[in-house]
Amino acid sequence: MNDAAGTFPSTVARDSVDPVPLTTVGGFDYETDVIIVGFGCAGAAAALEAAAAGADVLVLERLSGPGGSSAQSGGEIYLGGGTQVQKACGFEDSADDMYAYLRAALGPHADEEKLRLYCDESIEHFEWLRRQGISFQETLYDAPGWMAPTTDGLMWLGENAWPYGTLARPAPRGHRPPAENYGGWLLMEKLAAAVDAGGARTHTDTRAAALIADESGQVAGVTARHFGQDLRYRARKGVILTTGGFVDNEEMLAAHAPVLLGHGKVSDGGDDGSGIRMACALGAATRRMGMVEAALIAPPSLAYHGILVNALGQRFINEDVYPGTYSHAALLHQPAPWWVIIDQEGFEAAAATEAPGLQPQHVAETAAELGSELGMPAGALETTIATYNQDAARAEDRYFHKNARWLRELNGPLAAVDPRVLGVAAGTKTGIAGFTLGGLHTTVDGAVIHVSGRPIPRLYAAGRAAAGIHGEGYVSGTSLGDGTFFGRRAGRAAAR
Amino acid sequence: MNDAAGTFPSTVARDSVDPVPLTTVGGFDYETDVIIVGFGCAGAAAALEAAAAGADVLVLERLSGPGGSSAQSGGEIYLGGGTQVQKACGFEDSADDMYAYLRAALGPHADEEKLRLYCDESIEHFEWLRRQGISFQETLYDAPGWMAPTTDGLMWLGENAWPYGTLARPAPRGHRPPAENYGGWLLMEKLAAAVDAGGARTHTDTRAAALIADESGQVAGVTARHFGQDLRYRARKGVILTTGGFVDNEEMLAAHAPVLLGHGKVSDGGDDGSGIRMACALGAATRRMGMVEAALIAPPSLAYHGILVNALGQRFINEDVYPGTYSHAALLHQPAPWWVIIDQEGFEAAAATEAPGLQPQHVAETAAELGSELGMPAGALETTIATYNQDAARAEDRYFHKNARWLRELNGPLAAVDPRVLGVAAGTKTGIAGFTLGGLHTTVDGAVIHVSGRPIPRLYAAGRAAAGIHGEGYVSGTSLGDGTFFGRRAGRAAAR
Repeated sequence: MNDAAGTFPSTVARDSVDPVPLTTVGGFDYETDVIIVGFGCAGAAAALEAAAAGADVLVLERLSGPGGSSAQSGGEIYLGGGTQVQKACGFEDSADDMYAYLRAALGPHADEEKLRLYCDESIEHFEWLRRQGISFQETLYDAPGWMAPTTDGLMWLGENAWPYGTLARPAPRGHRPPAENYGGWLLMEKLAAAVDAGGARTHTDTRAAALIADESGQVAGVTARHFGQDLRYRARKGVILTTGGFVDNEEMLAAHAPVLLGHGKVSDGGDDGSGIRMACALGAATRRMGMVEAALIAPPSLAYHGILVNALGQRFINEDVYPGTYSHAALLHQPAPWWVIIDQEGFEAAAATEAPGLQPQHVAETAAELGSELGMPAGALETTIATYNQDAARAEDRYFHKNARWLRELNGPLAAVDPRVLGVAAGTKTGIAGFTLGGLHTTVDGAVIHVSGRPIPRLYAAGRAAAGIHGEGYVSGTSLGDGTFFGRRAGRAAAR
Repeated sequence: MNDAAGTFPSTVARDSVDPVPLTTVGGFDYETDVIIVGFGCAGAAAALEAAAAGADVLVLERLSGPGGSSAQSGGEIYLGGGTQVQKACGFEDSADDMYAYLRAALGPHADEEKLRLYCDESIEHFEWLRRQGISFQETLYDAPGWMAPTTDGLMWLGENAWPYGTLARPAPRGHRPPAENYGGWLLMEKLAAAVDAGGARTHTDTRAAALIADESGQVAGVTARHFGQDLRYRARKGVILTTGGFVDNEEMLAAHAPVLLGHGKVSDGGDDGSGIRMACALGAATRRMGMVEAALIAPPSLAYHGILVNALGQRFINEDVYPGTYSHAALLHQPAPWWVIIDQEGFEAAAATEAPGLQPQHVAETAAELGSELGMPAGALETTIATYNQDAARAEDRYFHKNARWLRELNGPLAAVDPRVLGVAAGTKTGIAGFTLGGLHTTVDGAVIHVSGRPIPRLYAAGRAAAGIHGEGYVSGTSLGDGTFFGRRAGRAAAR
């Protein structure tokens, strides 16, 4: 059986994740203290800290090199409480303000213990990341967005938008390595180099298949495949699953997060839930398996230069929030189709900088005509635009409190633009892409919890294989953020 | 340790659900072919069919008698395709129309294989229920509602409301035993008598603790407690978990369905997720653990005699849908607080028949005053009511297509009534109550699926311990319906 890297996805459904009894393992091909399954940001952080604690560490990666889905990401890391970058850009911040914002933006019902720790120790985590070679320019990108098109080291991620700005003192907390737009590759380049330098070994093209456990349920290692060869790895101190989420596993999506079925996947293609399934086969508990990040892919400035309406012509959110926030509001809660309604001035401002060549789907002389063309109830779009223009004229959005900076009357001919337009243009069938946030139930030290409530001995998880600091919300940087933060804690705990 | 029925809930978190190895079980206190854990509707249906197939059957029930949460329920069973009751009331129906309705109302992403079977065999299931002694009067209760205040045998459950009436030929499919309002007790009285007559034995005050499994993972029985005594039950052919959902387990709610935290529980107090946890300890897969039924508890006629608006004064649904549908729309998707806005004529019509003594929370002479008192954006409620009144005058709701039968201009002084008012009055702190819909991943024959994708040998589940025919929606009768329907199939499969 040739099980080379390129054929992995098709084997997902067939492969057993049944735990292998230690008594049936005749011998081991490799032995080490700590095995880490998956070389994304969480695996890298775990490897660095486990090695720093003196453990012999081996990282197994199914692909031919490190990076994982982290390397495909924007690269923002959500950090605050008063980092050097925040201070240099003129912002005061505190762990309490960071906590208050994240509790609202990632809520409701985020894990408060994890979130509190994440905020309280954020400055230390920032310094640790810098020690691994990751640099952040001390300049601010000052507009709402998914990512910055510049090399600025700091950006807003919804902190200054209503209602968040009223719940906590706003400070930008999106910390970015110096790359235009996508910067995950740079983050992972630095982390992988640090892992190498720190002494952890890596086996690439090696896909973990199942956990090895003794009769008491204690984890003793993993089985894996390397180009068709079956390998047995012994972990004297612990196994850390950093295998990512499950957006690439259609059966798991159907079972747990069907809202992402059919949409684009923000992943490296290997987020097949294998780590979650391996642990569940040992009785591991999960949390919030239905939670997702899902993005309507449009130029970010399109929404805040115009208004966002649902199929009935109603606005439903201040358009200057983090774009993921309006994406969730639309996809999860509003009747589709959704439209950006915008005038020529707004459209040109958005298209010129972010999407040259962009074309609106519909154009009309009046709101009534446009509403009719879009099949909205008679009068609906006129009322919405008249109200919005009144509010723009007096610089106060009575419904959703969009910042006055972005309030401007919509004049002249109007266009309707699909807020998924860039995604469709880029080949994402539905113009929507996302990934999963739910996963294994872990302690703050990454120990995987059994459905009985006790930790499973010597089994750890971090990154998107675990449920982290998210409730139902998401902002950029919180997945790389909690992946590296709790990955480090899992690495230290496993090395003890 | 005294583990009498009354003290069960406090022991939930402490108790281990770890599987007990068969090799460690010295001997058994009882042996039978099929063990059924839990005597609600699914357990009863499983017991009846397993016994009818010739198996020796034993039902374990933690409380002192049969009934479970099923006995606390409304008692509607969702049946159709052209039952005798539907025909006698003058309605034509088909399995395809039933399927089209349920696919929309219980969707998106309901289990289509289960749903198809449930609809195709619904007439047979209706006849089977009648053979167990359950009678249905051949009369229709003709208004939207959770339950009927009459003994009518048939009621609408949203089939004739927009958009459902446009997706399938509408026919009422809520079949009810002859009891005013709550009828679950009567349903369970008949089923329990039938179980007795069918020869299955029952051990009450007996709480299953863990599954017994052999080295290959095949289920061989259960351990249980009976007034502090530990008992071991051998099941030669299979164990069927019909233990209900997990609304009474706060930890599981926090992990999977936090939207119900703090709200009322529609249960007998014992829906602690124990069956789900016992199976997951053996590596069972789950589906849709976040799905819930959640009801805003108000007189059903209050909403359709008035309009329902969100915190911004916007309508968001046709108020003549099944009340669970507007409850979900509000609770899961609309900014709170929600209000019923109603005039004196409407209020009196609702209060007179369904809630004598009901008082509105706010009254005002005009929509502007009322909107201001409710803290809505200036002009919002006036616009909503003016639009609604225009539509009522021409008998066409341009936004949500509420049936013309319930469209009536709102005139004179207006009241705002909290759509949770009856729940609050009845002592449900938040005026919202619900239960969980997610559970074990099962085949159409009730076999519990392992995370590896294969069935766990000799383990079955049905009722709310399993994921059934629900996607994200719910209508009355579909839980008793799928509990009895798939309970029967599990009983037959286990007896084979």
